[in-house]
Amino acid sequence: MAIHNPVFEELMKDYDSALSHSGVSGERLARRLFELSQIGFTQVGGVKRPGFSQEEKTAKELVKKWMQEAGLQVAEDGAGNVRAWLPGKTPDAKAIASGSHVDSVPNGGNFDGPLGVLSALEVAESWKDTGYTPEKPYEVIIFTDEEGSRFNSGLSGSRAMAGEISEEEMLQLRDFDGKGLEQVLQDYGSSLQAFKEAKRDVTELELFVEVHIEQGKKLERDNQPVGIVSGIAGLAWLKAEFIGEAGHAGNTPMAGRRDPLVAAAEFIQKVSGFPEQVSETAVATVGKMEVFPNGANVIPERVELNVDIRDIQEQTRDRLVDLIASEAKRIADSRGIKVNLHENTKIQPIPIAENLKGKLADSLTKFGISPTYIPSGAGHDAMVLGRHIPVAMLFVRSKEGISHNPKEWSSLNDCVAGVHVLKDFIEKAMNE
Amino acid sequence: MAIHNPVFEELMKDYDSALSHSGVSGERLARRLFELSQIGFTQVGGVKRPGFSQEEKTAKELVKKWMQEAGLQVAEDGAGNVRAWLPGKTPDAKAIASGSHVDSVPNGGNFDGPLGVLSALEVAESWKDTGYTPEKPYEVIIFTDEEGSRFNSGLSGSRAMAGEISEEEMLQLRDFDGKGLEQVLQDYGSSLQAFKEAKRDVTELELFVEVHIEQGKKLERDNQPVGIVSGIAGLAWLKAEFIGEAGHAGNTPMAGRRDPLVAAAEFIQKVSGFPEQVSETAVATVGKMEVFPNGANVIPERVELNVDIRDIQEQTRDRLVDLIASEAKRIADSRGIKVNLHENTKIQPIPIAENLKGKLADSLTKFGISPTYIPSGAGHDAMVLGRHIPVAMLFVRSKEGISHNPKEWSSLNDCVAGVHVLKDFIEKAMNE
Repeated sequence: MAIHNPVFEELMKDYDSALSHSGVSGERLARRLFELSQIGFTQVGGVKRPGFSQEEKTAKELVKKWMQEAGLQVAEDGAGNVRAWLPGKTPDAKAIASGSHVDSVPNGGNFDGPLGVLSALEVAESWKDTGYTPEKPYEVIIFTDEEGSRFNSGLSGSRAMAGEISEEEMLQLRDFDGKGLEQVLQDYGSSLQAFKEAKRDVTELELFVEVHIEQGKKLERDNQPVGIVSGIAGLAWLKAEFIGEAGHAGNTPMAGRRDPLVAAAEFIQKVSGFPEQVSETAVATVGKMEVFPNGANVIPERVELNVDIRDIQEQTRDRLVDLIASEAKRIADSRGIKVNLHENTKIQPIPIAENLKGKLADSLTKFGISPTYIPSGAGHDAMVLGRHIPVAMLFVRSKEGISHNPKEWSSLNDCVAGVHVLKDFIEKAMNE
Repeated sequence: MAIHNPVFEELMKDYDSALSHSGVSGERLARRLFELSQIGFTQVGGVKRPGFSQEEKTAKELVKKWMQEAGLQVAEDGAGNVRAWLPGKTPDAKAIASGSHVDSVPNGGNFDGPLGVLSALEVAESWKDTGYTPEKPYEVIIFTDEEGSRFNSGLSGSRAMAGEISEEEMLQLRDFDGKGLEQVLQDYGSSLQAFKEAKRDVTELELFVEVHIEQGKKLERDNQPVGIVSGIAGLAWLKAEFIGEAGHAGNTPMAGRRDPLVAAAEFIQKVSGFPEQVSETAVATVGKMEVFPNGANVIPERVELNVDIRDIQEQTRDRLVDLIASEAKRIADSRGIKVNLHENTKIQPIPIAENLKGKLADSLTKFGISPTYIPSGAGHDAMVLGRHIPVAMLFVRSKEGISHNPKEWSSLNDCVAGVHVLKDFIEKAMNE
């Protein structure tokens, strides 16, 4: 494949080649990022590789070829997850694993997912180049359908591997074309039975560590290439429906109105002030809101909105949910209107063990990087595994914090810095 | 036509027949309200009679027949407005006119419009029954397409009559099927030329008085059957677009967010408090609002909303518009976001002359009704004529203030009280 795409040249143009050492190759990483960017390439420079699509499959086949060339043994499970491993000196020991995904959102970028997979693979490449054999088994994992653009419900691969998808959920899943899971799997070349058999005992893994772009601006602000994920926030979605009394905007005096939009407005303002009351890492956002009947000259009858509430500690996250729910009721009561509250998603936050964060900090310091701690607001495959085994995450600085967008960009220097930190951290874990 | 519809029986069942006197017949009014309710009757008990529809035409034909039977001369102009007149003792004098419309919103009720037309006709009926001949000419007018469900822009008939529809607007009008005005007129049996010729010198009318249901609850609260419209509020629509910075709800710390929905929320709350600062009759309503991209886990990038601002005095209405616009700018500035403001409708309020309100009060008092003054928040054909000639309006109590709905209801006692007040007021005007 001829290399002429700006992604490769752009990555290489300000690359400090002194970073290519100890078997780690910035040029190899750049070339692979570029080659993946060509699969599902969109006219606007991004990629479209939904989970279980031909594009995702082609991307996995390419990475599998590289894995084999790096001397790894490769297998794919019935859920489409790729596992590649080195047995190490003690093949019976629990494995150290790293990886991410190669699927994308409908108009995604070239780093969210691929960087984690290629960083994990680059560690194995460096070992091959330097003749290093790890003490314990090492696994590189590509999880399928992390983004959820296939079923509008992400993390399918890691959840299938961890045995978290119930038979009921399997029957309910419908993809963007209305196809059920069984049909999607059949089209992909798998089956429902093989999907179920993708469940493994994930405690065979001692530790899973994932490299990912930041999807925020903290590293950019702190001017650091790589940072430590302090925890993976648990999401809670609270749906609030304020019900008041509709009326003609011209004929209903202000006094005595029971306008649910004015109530919702008071609520939204209050919501924005609550997170700082519970912790530094908590966030709360009203992103979705509908007004009914939504007529320019009609006092609304009903307003529906969704509050997205996250924190990396369950206790503070739940306190924030309670504060917000109580405030909705207080506002509704004080305005003589009704409010219906419904908690429709509640995901457990995944804290990251202090000892793992400490070891990541040691590795960062070794490469002259000052440790920055960043909560991950978004879910990741590491979050799913983190319900079962210890996990850690590294964030690589991302230009302007942009993600899920063709403009997603991390410099090759930062990406390679991430690989070195990951390698050092994994090698320490191999020797403990 | 057999009378078996609940509308008639329901009207008659608690009717105080002592109200039928001086030539005014409650039973005739009830029968006519019922007969009109059968034209465009909907399954849920309301009516659907868009302007320029076969249903509106059928309703006008029926009323024309009654007009002729009442001894009026009848003509229809090229805009579909029906004029019926008695020359009176002094045919050269300026006429006293009354009327309303018989078109409806898509799922409308049986009183908004028809009550005004039938009340005006009942005055002529009473004169016929009692052998009274007015001093001046008397006109009963049915304006076409008042509600605007045809072109999404109401008051077509009265505006055509007053010569307020420009050639440009005529070309731009598109109905619910995408048909232009010319085609709609052709289908109706008129033409663009005839529509233009519907323009008349409305100053041939000395006074126009319209009876209408209240569309509010003030009379119900004050326990009065009929009230005086204190003025017709002028509508101003202010569109505000708040533009902030989108971001991932989980990965964007609260500090430094530029969330346009939180800004819009502060704005909506403030808007609800401003009307009382300018006058007792002012109102301001945010009824329509859209959030973009409206994703549960995305900090909004943009919020569009519409503020409906009304008052019966232009000065206070405009002060309210200014207050609201300044506040939008202040909030945007203080939050580091952008706001675009666009005033896309501004209609002049129509005050009602003090002497006319005084005469209406005298007529009410004559029938033992205590005068209640109510601003009309909605536009009416009287508003259009009020830009050119003196107008007055009477409101009839409407159950729970419901209008534009099959549940719209006024008791026959209240309707007949309205006819008596109208008749007395017109007879006074005839003798001045």
